[in-house]
Amino acid sequence: MLAIGIDIGGTKIAGALVDEQGLVVRELKVPSPVTDSKAMVSAIVELINELARDEQVVGAGVAAAGFLSADREILYYAPNISTWRDLPLRQLIASQVSVPVLLENDANAAGWAEFQFGAAKKAKSMIMLTIGTGVGGAVISEGHLMKGGFGIAGELGHVLIEPNGRKCGCGLRGCLESYASGTALLTRADELADSGSSLGSRLLELKQSSGKLSGELVYQAIREGDEGALSLVSELAEYLGLAIGTCFVPVLDPEIAVIGGGVSAVGDKLISPIRAATLANLPARGFRPEIEVVAANFLNQAGIIGAADLARQRFS
Amino acid sequence: MLAIGIDIGGTKIAGALVDEQGLVVRELKVPSPVTDSKAMVSAIVELINELARDEQVVGAGVAAAGFLSADREILYYAPNISTWRDLPLRQLIASQVSVPVLLENDANAAGWAEFQFGAAKKAKSMIMLTIGTGVGGAVISEGHLMKGGFGIAGELGHVLIEPNGRKCGCGLRGCLESYASGTALLTRADELADSGSSLGSRLLELKQSSGKLSGELVYQAIREGDEGALSLVSELAEYLGLAIGTCFVPVLDPEIAVIGGGVSAVGDKLISPIRAATLANLPARGFRPEIEVVAANFLNQAGIIGAADLARQRFS
Repeated sequence: MLAIGIDIGGTKIAGALVDEQGLVVRELKVPSPVTDSKAMVSAIVELINELARDEQVVGAGVAAAGFLSADREILYYAPNISTWRDLPLRQLIASQVSVPVLLENDANAAGWAEFQFGAAKKAKSMIMLTIGTGVGGAVISEGHLMKGGFGIAGELGHVLIEPNGRKCGCGLRGCLESYASGTALLTRADELADSGSSLGSRLLELKQSSGKLSGELVYQAIREGDEGALSLVSELAEYLGLAIGTCFVPVLDPEIAVIGGGVSAVGDKLISPIRAATLANLPARGFRPEIEVVAANFLNQAGIIGAADLARQRFS
Repeated sequence: MLAIGIDIGGTKIAGALVDEQGLVVRELKVPSPVTDSKAMVSAIVELINELARDEQVVGAGVAAAGFLSADREILYYAPNISTWRDLPLRQLIASQVSVPVLLENDANAAGWAEFQFGAAKKAKSMIMLTIGTGVGGAVISEGHLMKGGFGIAGELGHVLIEPNGRKCGCGLRGCLESYASGTALLTRADELADSGSSLGSRLLELKQSSGKLSGELVYQAIREGDEGALSLVSELAEYLGLAIGTCFVPVLDPEIAVIGGGVSAVGDKLISPIRAATLANLPARGFRPEIEVVAANFLNQAGIIGAADLARQRFS
């Protein structure tokens, strides 16, 4: 039987029919009417009903960025959708569709996809770090997706990594997200381009040719092997490895850390230095087995695949 | 039916018969022959056989400090017992007693006692920090005692709290344990006594009266309300709150943090500042429910009570 996965993004809502092996059988995308709370729910409902038509579907998993209640009924807060606050989202969707519905955090759904079908499918305990606009996280411990006491475990981007460091959107300073997100990478690239240093000359060229730097242009410089852009990737990797070695390993002891999200498209130029920094920062190194650090298998589809499989686990 | 709990310490081995409510019915203690690996095992076996005599016993849980294998068969490394390395401890004990035997890390066993019968008995997700010679930890997430991928999750004393800070026994610098253990408190008290500062005058008096400072003398100064000793408790509490707020909460999202171990005897003069520092360091404060910080219920008996109950859960 098939399951439906939905991933609610700030610009698009993606939906798919997914089979037992995590393969996407059919995928649909619609724009996100983010300024209209009711229209958002209607768009999700229509996607589910369209995907379920003429199919045997076990259930639908809906992945959303934000804080969910521990019982996965309420979306307390969604960073991308300002009209959604304290919304009983699961029930709003479930009352309008013919299949059972489950709600999960989007980074958790992506982590579950990697755990079941992707880079961590041989592990029992893993973490996933999603390096995009922010730094998302998921924790799977001995086969269980960790939700936490209040529903918001796995906020791995909000561990402290630099005391009194850069200001973070969460209200504190020095969070991992402020040093290791795509946003942080772009800010640093902009600073380097404007610094007058020869290391920033290629970034400055790209900036001047387009009026301003973008994630795509920084990615282009990285692919070209530009020394300046690569030094920023190393800096970002250093922070990720520090957080993995000195925080996630002692607390969680995962077998594997999976690195996903848009910035992970950089590939081994990102993964290798994260691995090196992780091992350099392991407590009791030599007295413990060593964590693996690998790139994610799935890119954009991790959320829908994971959400669909979580619904399958629950409802079949 | 009763269960047996054993807690292997560096100076004593404690054993007890424990009932379903976590009450100790009978307790025995013998010295630890730490320099003789075989004599250690024999002492544990004799304790179990003595406690099991003429009783209906469901099983025995054995708590030990150190790194255990994920399957809880092997003790890889015990900090207090230098002759124990890569020892198949569970089987060595089980082959000589008439009840089924389970092995668990001592901090985990203590955390389980607080979770089942003590300060966290209403919670589903909790952490315990044991402030003694080192800083031990336990994580219980949605009712599961977290063991980790390699068996060594919950090493909460080895998260980084001060980059390039004090040297830690684990080989790194700046671990929580180097700032928030009883050992760290004693070192700081010694420094303050010798500093010439008026804040250290009472500690200097106590040091001079006994030749050297001890944990007991520092505790005496704290009970007397000595300003210098209390400033060190606040400093220690500040580090614990920082670790809870900026690391354990974003990763694990526990409902409650239980503070135990010898130093927790200080009571509210320790717990209140930990609570304040935790809340001051919460990411997204105001958008999330707030973790509770409380003192442990059990002191020395937490290990035996937790180990006994883990054996009961497994074998009954």
